[in-house]
Amino acid sequence: MSDDPRGIDSVLVVGTGLIGTSVGLALREHGVTVKLADQDPAAVRVACELGAGEEWTAGGPRVDLAVIAVPPQFVAQWLLDLQKTEAARFYTDVASVKALPIEQAAGLGCDLSSYVAGHPLAGRERSGPAAARADVFLGRPWAYCPGPETAPEAVRAVLSLIDLCGGNAVEVAPAAHDEAVALVSHAPHVAAAAVAARLAEASDTALGLAGPGVRDVTRVAGGDPALWTVILSGNARPVAEILEAVAADLGRAAAALRAAAVEGAAIDPVTELLRRGNAGQSRIPGKHGGPPRSYAVVQVLVGDRPGELARLFQVAKEAGVNIEDVRLEHAPGLPLGAAELHVQPEAAGGLARALRAHGWHVP
Amino acid sequence: MSDDPRGIDSVLVVGTGLIGTSVGLALREHGVTVKLADQDPAAVRVACELGAGEEWTAGGPRVDLAVIAVPPQFVAQWLLDLQKTEAARFYTDVASVKALPIEQAAGLGCDLSSYVAGHPLAGRERSGPAAARADVFLGRPWAYCPGPETAPEAVRAVLSLIDLCGGNAVEVAPAAHDEAVALVSHAPHVAAAAVAARLAEASDTALGLAGPGVRDVTRVAGGDPALWTVILSGNARPVAEILEAVAADLGRAAAALRAAAVEGAAIDPVTELLRRGNAGQSRIPGKHGGPPRSYAVVQVLVGDRPGELARLFQVAKEAGVNIEDVRLEHAPGLPLGAAELHVQPEAAGGLARALRAHGWHVP
Repeated sequence: MSDDPRGIDSVLVVGTGLIGTSVGLALREHGVTVKLADQDPAAVRVACELGAGEEWTAGGPRVDLAVIAVPPQFVAQWLLDLQKTEAARFYTDVASVKALPIEQAAGLGCDLSSYVAGHPLAGRERSGPAAARADVFLGRPWAYCPGPETAPEAVRAVLSLIDLCGGNAVEVAPAAHDEAVALVSHAPHVAAAAVAARLAEASDTALGLAGPGVRDVTRVAGGDPALWTVILSGNARPVAEILEAVAADLGRAAAALRAAAVEGAAIDPVTELLRRGNAGQSRIPGKHGGPPRSYAVVQVLVGDRPGELARLFQVAKEAGVNIEDVRLEHAPGLPLGAAELHVQPEAAGGLARALRAHGWHVP
Repeated sequence: MSDDPRGIDSVLVVGTGLIGTSVGLALREHGVTVKLADQDPAAVRVACELGAGEEWTAGGPRVDLAVIAVPPQFVAQWLLDLQKTEAARFYTDVASVKALPIEQAAGLGCDLSSYVAGHPLAGRERSGPAAARADVFLGRPWAYCPGPETAPEAVRAVLSLIDLCGGNAVEVAPAAHDEAVALVSHAPHVAAAAVAARLAEASDTALGLAGPGVRDVTRVAGGDPALWTVILSGNARPVAEILEAVAADLGRAAAALRAAAVEGAAIDPVTELLRRGNAGQSRIPGKHGGPPRSYAVVQVLVGDRPGELARLFQVAKEAGVNIEDVRLEHAPGLPLGAAELHVQPEAAGGLARALRAHGWHVP
């Protein structure tokens, strides 16, 4: 490792899927030398062509850090193999569960002083190197799990990696990590799949009445079943515990609704569940880990043609208003859509006035 | 009723919440005379100020159509009272369940020949007259349920209402309607609440690892528990049946994960559920009831300052590209965000080239 304060000059990425390739892209933007390896030569070629680094040759010079970006159950074996050939000074991984690879690494006799388990929370609905982006980690949490044997230099190398990728380092114990991701990612995924599964056999009439709510609830259910089977297998007990609690809550709600249908009883257990849902939903941080933000929403009707939004943003610009988020909704066969402009609450009035003054219809 | 092909010249809206007020706004845009009534005088005043119509006076001239926009369990009593005073020639409602108000209306001895039950699928996360919009029904399904006693003129009046509001009329039997909305709205709402409820007592560390997936799954769980208790009470049996099926699927998935955690068994029932989730999710129509659309996504880094998006849309305009949807993601404390521009697949390459030629960073 050089004296450079960045701490890492050369990195080997093993596994050029979405996350591995994105790590390479991010590091290359900072001039870090990146070597790429994957069991699929085509995936390495795509990653190289995207500019994520150069193909790795076993037996070449030792790199500062190896990033093992393979499915959870293969992390420990790769760690052992790389350590045997002294491929890197330090090692980390990016798998979505942490207890399993750490236990397996200990079981295989890996050197745990040079290894820090990690997990960038940066999944996308797409997968594979072609979906990779250098900015996928920007402002996102990146969990890391130093153990009792971990050398401070290994932690520093991983913190440098997280810093270079623009992530927010979050130190967490492996078991706490796995319980957390079961709660905020793995169990919600299975629940979304269970809701979506009811639609597989539904009538076209029923699906024709679907709105934005069910689309939101089930969006993640479009994820790759094979990939998610691996993720869920590696975090089986924590996910099972949460799914059991969710199933029990839904069973109680169903029983109360059954009783109401027969006896006209009140559905207090359902109301109670909805209230707890309110409480839980309100605790989810905003887009990038900050507290939930309330932007004001300015709605404006826009024509469905090129340039309409450009003119709209030009008005916002001239009014000195920064648009924090935009949602567009177009109606089919109609020349009009509605744009929802999310702005700081204090800027909403001025923006609406400016838009109206320029002839926009702000309902 | 006049000879006007529109069929309805005057409408009474009872209940000036989100839907009732939006109906008034939409009808006013077509010059229809709109009278507004609500048990809360303040709600009527807000709706009048928004331009949704004028306050109704009992005993005034008979209107062509009364739109009863009150919670499901109060629809029949309003219908009876309005019919007693011959307030309107025809009647409809907009409640989210249909079997209950129709049964109650029959039980109360209402005239069923002049009544057509209806339900515009146009909910928003907000509620109340201030959230009303004339365009909230544009391109959305609007279910209506004529019965064996319904007069053809009553159906024509309701179809005129749907047409004036810009909705897509969908004829459906009351029981089929209620099963459909249980599947695509009510049960998903409860399931989202059950997932969100697990977060109420979670650690800050766990919530700090939350990403876009769990935000999507739980978004609707932010809805008003009192309002949803009423909705779910009115559709208890169909919702109970679906929740039981979802709970059973989740229970089986949990059992398979428990077995895997103890014995290292395969989790085939989970994979199977994920596959069924894939199949169901892919059947959900696109934004406005059409088949799901695949837009190409062009990603571009944008500065977090006024005018940046205006310049970007200007480039798209000059390239002749229509932007179908936009998602912005800003990283906190960073001057950069990523914009995802959704465009027709054939336009993506040209847009990316045009943006790059103007100095934009398209990863």
